[in-house]
Parts: sequence; structure tokens; C-alpha cells
Amino acid sequence: MKLLPKPLTIAEIAEFVGGEAIGALDYSVTGVADLADARPTDAVFLENRKYTDQAAMAQAGCLFLTPELKETPCAAKAKILVEEPRAAFAKLVRLIDDHGRPKVLPTHSAKASIHGKATLGPNVTIGDFCVIERGAAIGEHTIIMPQVYIGVNAKIGRNCLIYPQVVIRDECMIGDGVIIHSGAVIGADGFGFLTDKKTGHHTKIPQIGNVIIEAGCEIGANVTIDRGAVGSTVIKSGTQIDNLVQIGHNAKLGRDCVVVSQTGIAGSATVGNNVILAGQAGVAGHLTIGDGAIITAQSGVMSDVPAKAVLFGTPGRPHREAFKLQALFNRLPELFDRVKALDKKIGSATED
Amino acid sequence: MKLLPKPLTIAEIAEFVGGEAIGALDYSVTGVADLADARPTDAVFLENRKYTDQAAMAQAGCLFLTPELKETPCAAKAKILVEEPRAAFAKLVRLIDDHGRPKVLPTHSAKASIHGKATLGPNVTIGDFCVIERGAAIGEHTIIMPQVYIGVNAKIGRNCLIYPQVVIRDECMIGDGVIIHSGAVIGADGFGFLTDKKTGHHTKIPQIGNVIIEAGCEIGANVTIDRGAVGSTVIKSGTQIDNLVQIGHNAKLGRDCVVVSQTGIAGSATVGNNVILAGQAGVAGHLTIGDGAIITAQSGVMSDVPAKAVLFGTPGRPHREAFKLQALFNRLPELFDRVKALDKKIGSATED
Amino acid sequence: MKLLPKPLTIAEIAEFVGGEAIGALDYSVTGVADLADARPTDAVFLENRKYTDQAAMAQAGCLFLTPELKETPCAAKAKILVEEPRAAFAKLVRLIDDHGRPKVLPTHSAKASIHGKATLGPNVTIGDFCVIERGAAIGEHTIIMPQVYIGVNAKIGRNCLIYPQVVIRDECMIGDGVIIHSGAVIGADGFGFLTDKKTGHHTKIPQIGNVIIEAGCEIGANVTIDRGAVGSTVIKSGTQIDNLVQIGHNAKLGRDCVVVSQTGIAGSATVGNNVILAGQAGVAGHLTIGDGAIITAQSGVMSDVPAKAVLFGTPGRPHREAFKLQALFNRLPELFDRVKALDKKIGSATED
Repeated sequence: MKLLPKPLTIAEIAEFVGGEAIGALDYSVTGVADLADARPTDAVFLENRKYTDQAAMAQAGCLFLTPELKETPCAAKAKILVEEPRAAFAKLVRLIDDHGRPKVLPTHSAKASIHGKATLGPNVTIGDFCVIERGAAIGEHTIIMPQVYIGVNAKIGRNCLIYPQVVIRDECMIGDGVIIHSGAVIGADGFGFLTDKKTGHHTKIPQIGNVIIEAGCEIGANVTIDRGAVGSTVIKSGTQIDNLVQIGHNAKLGRDCVVVSQTGIAGSATVGNNVILAGQAGVAGHLTIGDGAIITAQSGVMSDVPAKAVLFGTPGRPHREAFKLQALFNRLPELFDRVKALDKKIGSATED
Repeated sequence: MKLLPKPLTIAEIAEFVGGEAIGALDYSVTGVADLADARPTDAVFLENRKYTDQAAMAQAGCLFLTPELKETPCAAKAKILVEEPRAAFAKLVRLIDDHGRPKVLPTHSAKASIHGKATLGPNVTIGDFCVIERGAAIGEHTIIMPQVYIGVNAKIGRNCLIYPQVVIRDECMIGDGVIIHSGAVIGADGFGFLTDKKTGHHTKIPQIGNVIIEAGCEIGANVTIDRGAVGSTVIKSGTQIDNLVQIGHNAKLGRDCVVVSQTGIAGSATVGNNVILAGQAGVAGHLTIGDGAIITAQSGVMSDVPAKAVLFGTPGRPHREAFKLQALFNRLPELFDRVKALDKKIGSATED
Repeated sequence: MKLLPKPLTIAEIAEFVGGEAIGALDYSVTGVADLADARPTDAVFLENRKYTDQAAMAQAGCLFLTPELKETPCAAKAKILVEEPRAAFAKLVRLIDDHGRPKVLPTHSAKASIHGKATLGPNVTIGDFCVIERGAAIGEHTIIMPQVYIGVNAKIGRNCLIYPQVVIRDECMIGDGVIIHSGAVIGADGFGFLTDKKTGHHTKIPQIGNVIIEAGCEIGANVTIDRGAVGSTVIKSGTQIDNLVQIGHNAKLGRDCVVVSQTGIAGSATVGNNVILAGQAGVAGHLTIGDGAIITAQSGVMSDVPAKAVLFGTPGRPHREAFKLQALFNRLPELFDRVKALDKKIGSATED
């Protein structure tokens, strides 16, 4: 278990997060935990009324919660009231993480294969068995963990963190501060071919574009983002992509989007800013999704989506409408019965 | 084609599997096959009445089948009656596999990068280009195939088999006898961030937990299992996970579950023991699925599921209800017609 | 931006693609682009009336379009009329790609691990940190990029291109001219086990088959194709598989199929020739899909599909029927209202 750099009293924690402490102000906390796993030395948080029972039971050191939930029963030594309990908790987590993260001296592993015509900025770390191809450039303070492949002329920004076994193909461009998790493949060929109408044979169309991932994005494990056929597949700044997501060639994702795991975005789709695509959603090719739209889990988007729309289902429908239809769908047995009864009545009525 | 260590007569096979042979007892079998591919020297099995026609045609050496199917027409030289034909067949397969598997002398490749402060048990095999980081520990008789990454302080049990190009991140714990297939990523960061309500920007919450996979689990190719935000993501003993499955941070899976390919289980979901999640199913976060529940393929679970429930569809409904609704859904055209006819009748009736 | 080997005039391009030029015949084009990104030196194409507005705006060098669209307004210096504009455009792309692709001298990296009993044909390239196991054979002119794993006795054909970090497990067979993208795992164990009815424990059935991928297939990034339990999983010639697709053990795919990303095909399914499986589709095990069938995106196939059928939804229904049902589904609120009105009328009518 990772711990705080040093124990902090409730009073110190309250000051650190800008909250109001109630309870044992001098009591010391050494770590953080989920409500379900809390020990008496852990800080925990309550974000959701669903977990008030768990909070009441958690023998924790301190419980972050909102002023509105002030009276929630609680077995912790103290409460700390803050407007955003999860953010306060995350502040402690960050303290632990900054402390626990091993300070790696930037080195280029002698066991890596770094082309003589690659450019490495100051304080770059290159792990064992990495391959950095000709013309690749890596910005300062970027960490390339072991077994990563960086293709010809690929550009990686500053302060990036590339986890083991990532592939970044030739010509792709990664902005500053990007995190890419293991197994992600950036810049594989898009799925493009010509099909002979007579024979049914497919002939590959070379995919000569690239991928551009802007600053501050995070790309999950085993994600695939295909290079443009010509031109670029683009992920704009701050967008967060979860594991096993597929992004097709020439798709354009806006700023600060959230793409949950196993979602697929087909080729040449255009996704606005701050769009949320929940898990296992699918977006067909050549569509436009407006800013701030939300596509719920497993939904399938088959036509353009206006800004701020919330879609559910396949084909995706506005969620209020979709939920109403689902409710009526549940009542189909009743409806069939009613129509049967009407048929019977009318049958007899008209036979009268 | 892999063969038995030596030819076995029908009589020997019947004894080996504990079955009753009918036919050419002295005939020799050298291998195994599917019904569709059987040669006269192969053992095959019939598990399902759907394939009785295929069984009738298969010019095999012997056919395993249940006593109830004893009279099934069959072109094989012999029948062997057993209660569990697939299990009997698997016994022969295991014999072939044990024999055919190359006996690798446990060695630590000189081409691997093994940290001086890693701990390797007796008879551990480390393949070429593996990276074993500081503080990692690997139990006896475990085989780490080439190009694997084992992170700082990760613990791997005894008798594990880790296929090429697996990533096991820092602090993760793998039990005894676990098999992990190529491309799997264990312990990537969970998908956790704070979103500024005004700007829409996301700030990463460090993910300081780990993954615990208990003894006897098998993890498929290109699976992703995220580390806990704090605390652990847990897969309990004996659970079988197929390819391309996503398990979110802090999810807890019970014992002996079966998770079929491309299923996604979101963060903090709790799945009981012996649960079956069929292909491409999705489970939303913070839910509980009871012991023995079955979630059918492509279904989406959006609320708690009781033990032994069988769910179908998105949103998931009890399957009997769901199938009834599907049947009524198919009859919607008829229902619209009947209502139209009623409208007509009543219209004229009331106009009278 | 990748450019043509040398600038070509409109007249030269028209001749090269077999089209008719209208406009500035002597004007020189140096590259290609999408309509949205075109510069005055780029060739672009118009395939779809949906983009005529974009074509009208694109300040391109030349626009490929069909004779029927001849009168489309266009800001390009010239039009080139061809029957298949996308194919003409692809011809130019191929010219750029052939020219831009670095001529790698075939070498076996001294940093690779090549078993003494592996067989490498003439002009084979083996990248850094590859592992080529005992008995593996690689055909002439094949390029194995860095960090690839080729298992014991695996056979790779001629003129293949295997991208970084692919795993091809033991005994698998890859035909000539196959392209496999990064992160793909060919020949991991199928998902096969026996479950004890009393204890619920699962016992692995060894998977002793292999995978056969025939000539001319392309396999996307992070795809998983499992080896047969016994016998082979087969992908026939010319089939194109997109990223993150799962193919289960003993599945058989026909010739020239198109399998779009995140689709899953379960074990022992048989897919005919020229079948299209759109994104995120699912096919249950032990089914047969006829030649030329189309399974639309996110659909779930739960029973056999006749040749040339077009299916939509889960469970998959013929698409005309499915679309009609979707339209009626949208009208459920109206239907409930109509039945309510009828109930009211009849109630009063019969009370009369």
C-alpha cells in the first residue's frame, strides 16, 4: 500500500484541501482507501448518497463529504467538509503518487535501438529494447518505457509518458504531456481498399496520412488509432480515451472529449468538443457529432447528432424518447391483451 | 498434426477414459480431430444432436458419445460410450499436448533485462528481450516467454505461463498457475479524472492501486485489466477471461466466472461467483451481479442483477420476458393492422 | 506531406488514370488530399453527392469525378472524368506510396534472436528485438518489423509485411502477401474448458490446433485470432480484417470477406465468401453465414444466415423487416394513444 510522504493530522489535511474539519483534529492519517477497504489510518470520501450506509460503517481516519451531507452517520475519527470531496481526496492521492513514483534518472538504455538520425531532447528516458527509428524526435523530459516502437519521422512532444509496448508508427505526431498506455497502436493503416465488382477481390489503398494527438490527451491500453488515408486522423487537446477504443482513419475528435472503453468511431467521423461516448458505443463513418453531445453505452450513432443531444440505443434516439419507448415496449403484452379484448368486444358488438 | 505419444487401440482408449467400447477393439488410433476433419486414425466426439449427421459421415477411428446416443449411425471403426464425451476427448487431447509440448530447460535469457533487485524462484524461465523491473518476484517453475514486461514490485506466482508480449505493470499480483495470453495488459491506469465544470478540462487522478489475479485464472489475448484507483481490481480464483475483454478499475470478479470475448466490465462493478458474461456484454459501473447469473451476448447491464438471473438485451431484461417481448415486437405490424381495423369499425360504428 | 515522385500535369494525370481532363491541362499537381484539406497543388476526388458542396469549395489542383457529375460546380483548376474516381485517386496514392516508402535493404538485425533451426528465405528482413523460434520458416522478401514474435514451427509466406509487436504463435501458417498490423495476436489458445457441474470449477482443454491465414489477407491492429482446439481456425484468401476483431477457435472465414473493427466471431462459426460484417457485429458459435451476406453494425447473429441476406439488430433480422419494425417502434406512443381512445369509445359504446 502506498502511503503519504508523512502522516498528516486531520487539521493539516483540512487546511491542505481547504475544508472544514469536525472531530479529532490531532488524529493522524497515513493513507487513502475506498470506503469498503478503509483502515483507521485512511482518508476516504463520500460522493454519492448511494454509499451513505458504507460511509456509516467505514472505520476510517477521516471522511471527506459535502456540507449538505454533514449529518451523515460516520464511524471515522473525523469529517472534513468540502464542496468537492472527490477532488479533495484526489489531492491526497496526488501527494502519495508524487512521493511514491520512483525518481528515474533520464538515461538512454544501452539495450535500446536508437537510430543515429533520431533526435532526443534533454532529459529523455529511453527504456530497454525500445526501437527509435530514423528521423524520430522526442521532446525533453519525455519517458519512453521499455519495448516501445517509435517509427520513422514520428514526433513525440515534451513531458510525455509512453508505457511499455506502445507502437507509434511513422510520421505520427504526439503533443506535449500526452500519456499512452501499453499495447496502444497509433498510426496503423486505415481500413481502405477498392473492391472489384466482378470478382469481389479487394485491393489495398495505401494509407499515406498520419495521426495527430494534441497536448494533454491520454490514450488507454490496447487502443487503436488509424492513420489517415491521406491527411490526418486528429485527436484534439485534452481528450481522454479509455482502453480498447477504435478510432478509424481521418476521424477528427474535438477537445476534452471522453471516450469510454471499447467504443468504436468509424472513418471520417467528426466529433465536437466535450463529447462523451460511453462504453461500447459505435459511431458510423462520415458523421458529425455536435459539441457536448452524450452517447450512452452500447448506443449506435447512424446519423448526425446535434450539439448537447443525449442519445440512447441502436439506432440512437434522444434518450427521453428512447426511455419512453422502452417503457412502452415493456407494456407490449398489456397492449396485445387490450387489443385482443377490443377485438372480442367489437366482434360481438358488430355481430349484434 | 500433433499425434498421441504412441498409437492406442480402441480397447486401451476405452479403458483410459473409463468408457465402453463397441466395434473394432484392436484398431489403433493415433490422433484426434473435429468431426468435419476426421481421418480413419482419429478419435472424435459427438456432444450435440445437431451434429449426428456429421457423426454418421465421419470416417473416424472412434467416436465418443453418450450411452443415450448409442444407436447413432456412425462411420467410425468403433464407438466408445461415456457419460461426458467431450471430457473423454479432452483426456486424449491432454495426452497429446503433454507429449508435444517442448521440454524447455529453465533458463534466464542473456538477452533479457533482469534487474538486480528482482527475485526469481527456482526453475524460472525468462525469455529473450523480457524486462523484469526492480523488486519484481517470480515464483518457481513459472515460464515468462519473450518480450514480456514485468513492472516494479510485481509478484508472479508459481507455475504460471506468461505468453509473449504481455505487460504486467508495477505492484500487480498474479497467483499460482495463472496463464496470461499475448498482448494482455494488466494494471494500466484506470480511467479516472476530475472535470472542471467551467472549462470542461479533465485533470488526471493518479491511479495508485493495483490488480490482483488469484490462482488458476486464465486471461485472454489483448485483454485489459486496469489497476484500482486506490485499492485493488480483483479477479478471484479460477475465473476464465477470453480475448479483448475490458475490466475497469476497482472491479471485483468472483470465483470461476466465465467472461467471453469483447465484454466490458466498468469500474467498481462487483460480479459474484460462477457468473457467465457472454460475448460483447457490457456491465455499467458500481453494480452488483449475483452468483451464478448469466448475461447473454451483447446485453447491457444497467442495474443490479440477482443471483442466477438470466439477462438478455439492452437494457438487460430477464430472458423469458425479453424473448416474449421480442416475439411481440415481431408482431407489431399485425398489431398496427388490427388497431387500424378497429379504428375503422369503431369509426363507422360510432358514426352510425 | 508525402508528394508525388515528380509534379504531373493534369493531362499526364488524365492519361495515367485513363480519364478525360477538362480545364487547365498544363497545370501541375504535386500531391493528393481530402476535399476538406485540399491545396491548389492537390488532386482530390468526389465519390458521393453528399460532398458536392465541399467539392465546389475545394481549391484543388484537379478533381476526379464521374461523367454523370460532370457539371458539379468546382473550384479546382481542372476536372478529370473517370468511371471510378476513388480508384483513379488511389492510383495516384499508390504512386506516392511506392515512391515514399524507404527502400530497406533486407537484413537480419544483429539485435534479433533467430533460432539456428529457423529457415529464412532470400531477402528476408528481420527487425530489432524480434524472436524467431525453432523450426519457424519465413518466405522470401518478407519484412518482419521490430519486436515481432514468431513461434515454434510457424510458417510465414513470401512478400508478407509484419508490423512491430505482432505475435504469431507456434505452428500457425500465414500465406503469401499477408499484412499483419501491430498488436495482432495470431494463434493464442481458444477459450475451451470443461466445467465441473458440482464444484463449478473449470479445467482447461489444451488447444492443440493452429491458425491458417491464406494469401492476400490483411489483419488489423490488436486483432486476436485463436488457434483451433484441434484442427485449424481458417481465414481464406483475400479477406480483410479491421482492428480489434476477435475470431474464435475453429472459425472458418471464406474468401474476400470484410470484417470491420470490433466485430466478434465465436468459435466454430462458418462464414462464407464475400461476407461483410460491419463494426461491432457479433456472430454466435457453430453458425453458418452464407456467401455475400451483410451483417450491419452492432448486429448480433444468433442463427444461420442465408446467402446474400442483409441483417440488422440483435437478434439479427432481415434489414427491411428490421427497419419496418423500428419505424413501428417509433410509433408506439401513437399506438398506445389509439388503443386508449378505442377503449374509451368502446367502454362508452358498450355501456350505452
